[in-house]
Amino acid sequence: MKTFEEITEIVSNEIDKLNWKKKPHGLYEPIAYVLSLGGKRIRPALTLMACNLYSENINAAIAPALGIEVFHNFTLLHDDIMDKAPIRRGKPTVHIKWDDNTAILSGDVMQITAYQLITKSPANILKEILDLFSITAVEICEGQQHDVDFEQRNTVTADEYIEMIRLKTAVLLGCALKIGAIVGGAGNADADALYDFGINIGLAFQLKDDLLDVYGDEANFGKKIGGDILSNKKTYLLIHALNLAEDAHKKELTQWLTTKEFKDEEKITAVTSIFNTLGVKRICEDKMQFFYHKAIASLDKVNVDVNKKQELRKLAENLMYRND
Amino acid sequence: MKTFEEITEIVSNEIDKLNWKKKPHGLYEPIAYVLSLGGKRIRPALTLMACNLYSENINAAIAPALGIEVFHNFTLLHDDIMDKAPIRRGKPTVHIKWDDNTAILSGDVMQITAYQLITKSPANILKEILDLFSITAVEICEGQQHDVDFEQRNTVTADEYIEMIRLKTAVLLGCALKIGAIVGGAGNADADALYDFGINIGLAFQLKDDLLDVYGDEANFGKKIGGDILSNKKTYLLIHALNLAEDAHKKELTQWLTTKEFKDEEKITAVTSIFNTLGVKRICEDKMQFFYHKAIASLDKVNVDVNKKQELRKLAENLMYRND
Repeated sequence: MKTFEEITEIVSNEIDKLNWKKKPHGLYEPIAYVLSLGGKRIRPALTLMACNLYSENINAAIAPALGIEVFHNFTLLHDDIMDKAPIRRGKPTVHIKWDDNTAILSGDVMQITAYQLITKSPANILKEILDLFSITAVEICEGQQHDVDFEQRNTVTADEYIEMIRLKTAVLLGCALKIGAIVGGAGNADADALYDFGINIGLAFQLKDDLLDVYGDEANFGKKIGGDILSNKKTYLLIHALNLAEDAHKKELTQWLTTKEFKDEEKITAVTSIFNTLGVKRICEDKMQFFYHKAIASLDKVNVDVNKKQELRKLAENLMYRND
Repeated sequence: MKTFEEITEIVSNEIDKLNWKKKPHGLYEPIAYVLSLGGKRIRPALTLMACNLYSENINAAIAPALGIEVFHNFTLLHDDIMDKAPIRRGKPTVHIKWDDNTAILSGDVMQITAYQLITKSPANILKEILDLFSITAVEICEGQQHDVDFEQRNTVTADEYIEMIRLKTAVLLGCALKIGAIVGGAGNADADALYDFGINIGLAFQLKDDLLDVYGDEANFGKKIGGDILSNKKTYLLIHALNLAEDAHKKELTQWLTTKEFKDEEKITAVTSIFNTLGVKRICEDKMQFFYHKAIASLDKVNVDVNKKQELRKLAENLMYRND
């Protein structure tokens, strides 16, 4: 059994081996750039760790693991255009460093590259893996569309928000684990339990992200703190704040959401203060814990020695208590 | 053997059967829209016709044929954003009718859908078909990148231009034919000859497009006549005009290329008149004929009864003498 650290080193080495020094440079340099920014590499790590539960040899899972990471980074390129995000992982986003057209086209070729890597999966399970990957990829686009749609709507329920982040974030973690399990030779029940583990970790992970966006530390987080507040993003925090606020708080919150003229720091401070008064941080943390415990329950169902599952359990824990 | 008309009717019926009445509507309606605008459906027709050379039953080729058409339409969505094109097939482009973000995201899901359809190819040839399709898809992105790069460059050679349109346009026709041939059970030599047929038809087809953009009829063409001239697009016509023009013509042409203030109709008339004086229309037509004859020579090499190849030969001819 490999540790998480050993696994991420394999991932990191394999990502470095991908060749982007090809022509036309305008197409491939942004890809090398975005992949060099790092990130936690959780998705490919999950694929290899799931495979490793069933097989000491994880070589066959490397290509699909990389495919999933390249796909994830593709979605970041396109999402950052749509969200007009200037910073990702502490560095200028591709559409800022180059331009929108570059981010569109380099993203497109990343999506194809992802499929090329996935297509290197063993022939006997190729179709099963491709079908799972494609369904997941479609769901991620659907999640992004819901996210875009929510920006235009006055009210979004907490359930709708959870469904959106399930599609936009959680399904790729589930998919990463399940693909690793299939490559490793897991049975259907185990593959599905690992998928559910990924879904619930993903949901908890995104709620943690919402919390970090308001309560995180900018240097660690790699993005601007308060970005969600400035863009009126209907996060789990804001949705509950809008539900709970009455009278003066309701009026103040609505004012901050509708005014076009404000100083960034003032709006962030004021909205955070309303969040604190209403206790929505706690509500978000509780929901995060809820999904975390569901995830662990799914992991418990996976029919392999409890020691082998220790690394996945540790990873889940770290994701909950991270500050970046 | 099915006629081209019978083949396109099958394609058209199968495209109508694709279900886009799914949620979120904001993601799927633009796909239904762009696919409803028609187009010549040449690529899926080529797949089915190539399959039909080797097999009376073409059912197995339908899904990959549709995948290729959906992929082609995805590239139109993204290219139209990059080119800021307002009109496609006589109707507003998706990024105009909706917005850039919609065209990006609906395009992304179309690319995934294309892979889902391709993945329905028979299991024993799935990997071969996917590898060919992915390489082709990457080449198309590379072609688009060259096209974007050329806009920023002062000089582009005729050879560079031909290589760009080979990647951007021709390889998908070659790929469409080769996939059909593989599904139909063709040997490697035939599959490659059909690929070459597609490449050369594609090159001739694109040169025809360049000609139609200047000398076509707006009602038939479905796009604004003179669009390439207005955007200073370095087409085969302009590249040769810049090579051949001397003194007064050179000065006049350079002036039209650099001035920011002009009346559209005046620029189109003036540049077309320079093209006519320099005889670049004829040069472009000759090159088109050159590729057309190379295409026919490749088709001649395909080792099936000459009568069976009649429909492909007729289609190639129609593409050369079309006015839309």
